[in-house]
Amino acid sequence: MENHFGDRLTQAIKQKDAPVCVGFDPLIERLPAELLKKHGVGEKVDEHVRTNANLGGLADAVVEFGEEILRISAQHVPAVKINIAFFERYYVAGIRAYHRLVRRATELDLLVIGDVKRSDIGHTAAQYAQAQLGPLSHPGLGEIATPDAITVNPYFGFDGIEPFVTLAKETAGGLFILVQTSNKSAVEVQGLVLADGRLVSDAMAELVQGWAAADGLVGDSGYSCVGAVVSPRDLESTERIRKLMPNCIFLVPGFGAQGRTADEVAKCFKDDGTGAIVNASRSVIYAYNDPKYRDTFGDNWRGAVEQSCKDLVTAVRAVAHR
Amino acid sequence: MENHFGDRLTQAIKQKDAPVCVGFDPLIERLPAELLKKHGVGEKVDEHVRTNANLGGLADAVVEFGEEILRISAQHVPAVKINIAFFERYYVAGIRAYHRLVRRATELDLLVIGDVKRSDIGHTAAQYAQAQLGPLSHPGLGEIATPDAITVNPYFGFDGIEPFVTLAKETAGGLFILVQTSNKSAVEVQGLVLADGRLVSDAMAELVQGWAAADGLVGDSGYSCVGAVVSPRDLESTERIRKLMPNCIFLVPGFGAQGRTADEVAKCFKDDGTGAIVNASRSVIYAYNDPKYRDTFGDNWRGAVEQSCKDLVTAVRAVAHR
Repeated sequence: MENHFGDRLTQAIKQKDAPVCVGFDPLIERLPAELLKKHGVGEKVDEHVRTNANLGGLADAVVEFGEEILRISAQHVPAVKINIAFFERYYVAGIRAYHRLVRRATELDLLVIGDVKRSDIGHTAAQYAQAQLGPLSHPGLGEIATPDAITVNPYFGFDGIEPFVTLAKETAGGLFILVQTSNKSAVEVQGLVLADGRLVSDAMAELVQGWAAADGLVGDSGYSCVGAVVSPRDLESTERIRKLMPNCIFLVPGFGAQGRTADEVAKCFKDDGTGAIVNASRSVIYAYNDPKYRDTFGDNWRGAVEQSCKDLVTAVRAVAHR
Repeated sequence: MENHFGDRLTQAIKQKDAPVCVGFDPLIERLPAELLKKHGVGEKVDEHVRTNANLGGLADAVVEFGEEILRISAQHVPAVKINIAFFERYYVAGIRAYHRLVRRATELDLLVIGDVKRSDIGHTAAQYAQAQLGPLSHPGLGEIATPDAITVNPYFGFDGIEPFVTLAKETAGGLFILVQTSNKSAVEVQGLVLADGRLVSDAMAELVQGWAAADGLVGDSGYSCVGAVVSPRDLESTERIRKLMPNCIFLVPGFGAQGRTADEVAKCFKDDGTGAIVNASRSVIYAYNDPKYRDTFGDNWRGAVEQSCKDLVTAVRAVAHR
């Protein structure tokens, strides 16, 4: 279908032969020193962050860093994921910076996933949907945009998801609903065992597949505009969840800094190598702090980021085509 | 403990003899006509909302409406809950309006719950915690503030909650963790039956009680700075959840517009009438649209809001002291 999110993402992955998403989670303390200096943050970054001094300068440094990350990413990967938490931190200046970077990514022909993890009851979810996925078309708003897709939290069940689905359908947008997250404590909730033997995450997988397969949501690619966040926990459960959700593209966190193995990540793909996009954030955007790249690139932080991005694509490509 | 959130809330409820919270979820379309007109939104409100025209005017109308709601609420109830979704909708102007109203509420000696329902893995949750619960002390930020407490979503398990707890402890703030929500579809996830016979919401209740009772979190009142959002589903399960969470204050949604019965809400309180604060949003802030109040108050929307606020306090007081 024209402009269908599942089709667009599948096509974009194919074109770059890269089922890879670069995650932009910028911690100001880890930004290249030259950028901090340029924006008047300098060596007092901890103090600036603690006291909320110079929020505009902090946000500007994040925007300039982000523009470079996006420019490099656009040459190698089809999509970026921008986590709004790292922008909310700078209040009004941060929210402006977030929407500005989303716009910049769109101009670079990147698909943009807004990692916002919103959730609420229906009539409130409709407000979040409008804020995070609604069109930002009015010229008075300046050079800003909303993402192509966002992440949402399913704890409310379907009526908390429906307003997001409705707007995604209207705007050719997409959703990634949390099913299995990458953090250690996830099992406390998602790993609870149900009376019928399933895990809570299995039940979520079946629910999300049901929502994703509803009338008019599945594109020509066979994938819905409703996907899922699935972090592989082990080989067996990942294989099971992949089978439970034939119409969902998986957004797979935890490659790189969070340390999922290639074997586990491979199970998130279907046999034809489609159906998943693997995200790495810290291992790419802070590559210049990693001895592996620092020894070669020194102060050339852009070079380090680009090399780690290329290495990531090579690694994930091998996994997907396995 | 001095400044402990659970103690402050318990004390404030006692002082006003009103375990009641007014929820501010402002849908621009339902604001009093005179306010819309004053801020240049007038009769074209639907068009303004759809096209993002005049976001500043929309946000200003919401702020003026909010200031009146807060002023009226402060005379009758100890706390307000402000839902950020209805502000995010107006982007930068909305975020500024949200923090401005939080500040205004604080100046009126109201305790403020930011209904933000944030969630993410630990290092990202730390960013959300700072954004939503961190001190906003820098003078350059203007007349804005962060809330005393916020709502959070537990789907990630404890490591996604911990950064919020840490900051709440540092800032004498509080949390309300979603356990049982008021929407119809909640049962799809929260009502799943576990192998040991408990529901997912029972398991959540036990987890949250464990987090709430950790060292240093329980105040002199016996209540923790970590509370829970608990919407009564039926008498039996509400009684059970109340017993499972002795150290948690319940934030109880669903009174009023969402139609929970007095009997069900009564089970959220302990026998001594403490341990819960009942929220009503739409039935108070839009009381002027309700024939029950419109017939008496006509265009005097402030009078309608105040009367509905008084009626709410009377009704909840009766329930709590039952």
